[in-house]
Amino acid sequence: MKHFFDPETVALIGATENPFRAGYQLFLNLNYCFGEKFYPVNPKGGTIEGKTCYPSILDVPLPVDVAVIFINANRVPEVLEQCGEKGIKRVIIESAGFSETGAEGLALHKRCLEIARENDIRIWGPNCMGVINVHTMKVISFFRHDMWREKFLPGPVSLVVQSGMLSAGFLTRILSRNPFGLSKICSIGNKMDIDESDILEYLIRDPETEVIAMYLESVENGRRFFTLCQSTRKPIVVLKAGRTKIGAQAAQSHTGSLAQNDTILDAALRQTGVIRVHDMNELIEIARCFGIVNVESPKRTQLAVLTFSGGAGVVSSDTIYDYGMDLARFNGSTTEKLKKLFPEWMEPSNPLDLYPAMEKNGYYQVMQPSLEAAIHDPEVDGIFAHLFAFPSDKPLFEYEKIGTMLKDVNKPMVVWTLGDDTSSSELKSQFEQVGVPVVDEISKGVRILSALLQRK
Amino acid sequence: MKHFFDPETVALIGATENPFRAGYQLFLNLNYCFGEKFYPVNPKGGTIEGKTCYPSILDVPLPVDVAVIFINANRVPEVLEQCGEKGIKRVIIESAGFSETGAEGLALHKRCLEIARENDIRIWGPNCMGVINVHTMKVISFFRHDMWREKFLPGPVSLVVQSGMLSAGFLTRILSRNPFGLSKICSIGNKMDIDESDILEYLIRDPETEVIAMYLESVENGRRFFTLCQSTRKPIVVLKAGRTKIGAQAAQSHTGSLAQNDTILDAALRQTGVIRVHDMNELIEIARCFGIVNVESPKRTQLAVLTFSGGAGVVSSDTIYDYGMDLARFNGSTTEKLKKLFPEWMEPSNPLDLYPAMEKNGYYQVMQPSLEAAIHDPEVDGIFAHLFAFPSDKPLFEYEKIGTMLKDVNKPMVVWTLGDDTSSSELKSQFEQVGVPVVDEISKGVRILSALLQRK
Repeated sequence: MKHFFDPETVALIGATENPFRAGYQLFLNLNYCFGEKFYPVNPKGGTIEGKTCYPSILDVPLPVDVAVIFINANRVPEVLEQCGEKGIKRVIIESAGFSETGAEGLALHKRCLEIARENDIRIWGPNCMGVINVHTMKVISFFRHDMWREKFLPGPVSLVVQSGMLSAGFLTRILSRNPFGLSKICSIGNKMDIDESDILEYLIRDPETEVIAMYLESVENGRRFFTLCQSTRKPIVVLKAGRTKIGAQAAQSHTGSLAQNDTILDAALRQTGVIRVHDMNELIEIARCFGIVNVESPKRTQLAVLTFSGGAGVVSSDTIYDYGMDLARFNGSTTEKLKKLFPEWMEPSNPLDLYPAMEKNGYYQVMQPSLEAAIHDPEVDGIFAHLFAFPSDKPLFEYEKIGTMLKDVNKPMVVWTLGDDTSSSELKSQFEQVGVPVVDEISKGVRILSALLQRK
Repeated sequence: MKHFFDPETVALIGATENPFRAGYQLFLNLNYCFGEKFYPVNPKGGTIEGKTCYPSILDVPLPVDVAVIFINANRVPEVLEQCGEKGIKRVIIESAGFSETGAEGLALHKRCLEIARENDIRIWGPNCMGVINVHTMKVISFFRHDMWREKFLPGPVSLVVQSGMLSAGFLTRILSRNPFGLSKICSIGNKMDIDESDILEYLIRDPETEVIAMYLESVENGRRFFTLCQSTRKPIVVLKAGRTKIGAQAAQSHTGSLAQNDTILDAALRQTGVIRVHDMNELIEIARCFGIVNVESPKRTQLAVLTFSGGAGVVSSDTIYDYGMDLARFNGSTTEKLKKLFPEWMEPSNPLDLYPAMEKNGYYQVMQPSLEAAIHDPEVDGIFAHLFAFPSDKPLFEYEKIGTMLKDVNKPMVVWTLGDDTSSSELKSQFEQVGVPVVDEISKGVRILSALLQRK
């Protein structure tokens, strides 16, 4: 598997100079990432962007670690045989038009698999977006070149997406709106040969991957998959779609996935400590947050909610209850510390509405000490802090100090922030650097605390 | 009630020149919005920002439509008596420290109410952020002056929020990130006298309000409230918090709200056609979308899902099922139109993965005609379109044409968009101008279609 994620030499069968076709983006990416070690193939020969194409893969004079195929499905078997002849052992088929299209496509699927077995070829795909290694900056995908170039941040999160365009779409969103550290990104498509378990096994061992997020439409070999999930403490977040009647039908026409009993699957996911989600944004956001902080789950899940708004405290409490967690009861020492900050008429309780204290003593005098008190309270297992951000000459918090304290006591804190966009972004960036994820919706904050604290 | 939302003259009892106190923001706002018709009161007299303060409300020489009180709770009864003496009939108490704080606060609450009854005064609050009228630009609130000035857009959505800071926080977010048209914004706090039904009644009659969004921690007079809800076709979206055990406790310490049986309340909300939500973002987003489009609910809820990603189609299908809706079966004429756009191997079905058609014929040749085909299909009651946005010299869609078609057939369309931030924002702005809400998460798109189509 390592060579799929980090090949030295790559060939592209289906290079095109038509800038409106995805094959052109594939060409641009491979040319940029592999340079002289990239060999484009086009039956017409000629050049693309000044680079000479080989008429066939058999004409490439050097060994090829990975051949990428992006041509009409019905021409794939022929080309696959040529790959075998050349001794290529790894092929990524990014074209669609196979088992997802009915009987004819299924026949093509079977034929390709036969050829692969005969020639000892491992096949990735078809009907996929390929592989991206952010740490070595190898983009073996038709993901639009101008969308990623100079935008990827290397980091701990690996994404596995069954569907091609979905990963392309989300990558664009991530890179354009909220870039975070990524390790490997890949789309597995129809899983003719290589499946999610092969990839999961690799990512579990991969030292550059600390968090694994997967979008799946089916689980091929449940026993192997769940054994793998159980074998690691790396957080695994899974969006398994096709869980309802109409969703399963859609999955079948998309990647040829057969319907699976979702109740059984769901129970197995829970037992093996997988965090299951139901939306792509939730998948990405939870994985992103695990990339920022990861704590050992405590036995209890009693939260402190610190807020600038009593109403937000009430909504948070309801949501905390929905997720099977509870509010901590502050211990005496915390209450004493807090009392000094509050007007006499207000007895500090949890959720802690800091607004009256702020109105009495000011933002800086109240926020930082209140957070510190909650972090140190032994009754508190995690902190959900609602922080109002505003333009200010000095930093709103002692970020480093908070981060260190949290690490010392092994507790997660998640921040929900409101305020103008610039100030909120600054607060987010500062907190996330010290291991405190920042979200923009109350329900997301509680969701993430639940994932961090309630993981098996 | 009209005079609370649109007074001619306003006094502020509790004006301060300390720029770190909320009373200073109140001063700035009233001074900006009412100019010469604003009378600040400060026992020390003197001037604030060059404006002369009256030592007491009794010293104000002119009639006052609304007196705003923002002083320590225990001084409020005395000031309220002075308001009575002066013949003021409407008072907004924005200070906290009343029934939410226990026995002493409750006594203050009762005393204020007695004075109000004796003097025929209507009281708004206490413990609230006050009233904002966006159409006449009257901001009777401590909402930070620099956060709203020149940022409000007049429009159809009115927000009623029990909690003060929550509305301030969300207003800041709305104005800074995603401004949309607002009518009245108010926070009702402890509801000493005026409650949500008084305000709802006013907003139902208010010609400038087309959509009503409410955050409530309690419903005071259920029968009146639900009768009002049933009396209008204006969409009413409600976040009733304190619905769980710990949420209800938090609500009691926040606004002194007593716990209510949520099962009964929930049933009543459903029966009266109220759209109930559980998160502030959901509240704001659904209200915003109703401000963009509002259709009569059909008898069926069969959706067409058009997507650039088979995976997104599967996730959407699951979520559509979760909300009790279904996928439409395209009729013969639609299928014929679509077939011409797709490669031969692909039979168009719903969810419709447009990617293979785009790869064959290009974005512009496929997207617009496919949307038109779905809109015109009599089997389709609503459209969920996933649209990939990218930098382009020409408009990605014929927006006007789509908007007109949708109005002709009385169907809602909601767009989920992915792509780089600039292109997505442009697409969003164009579509929303023609009555098509654009969201940034799949689950939100389905949620909104459900609200639009499944409203009683």
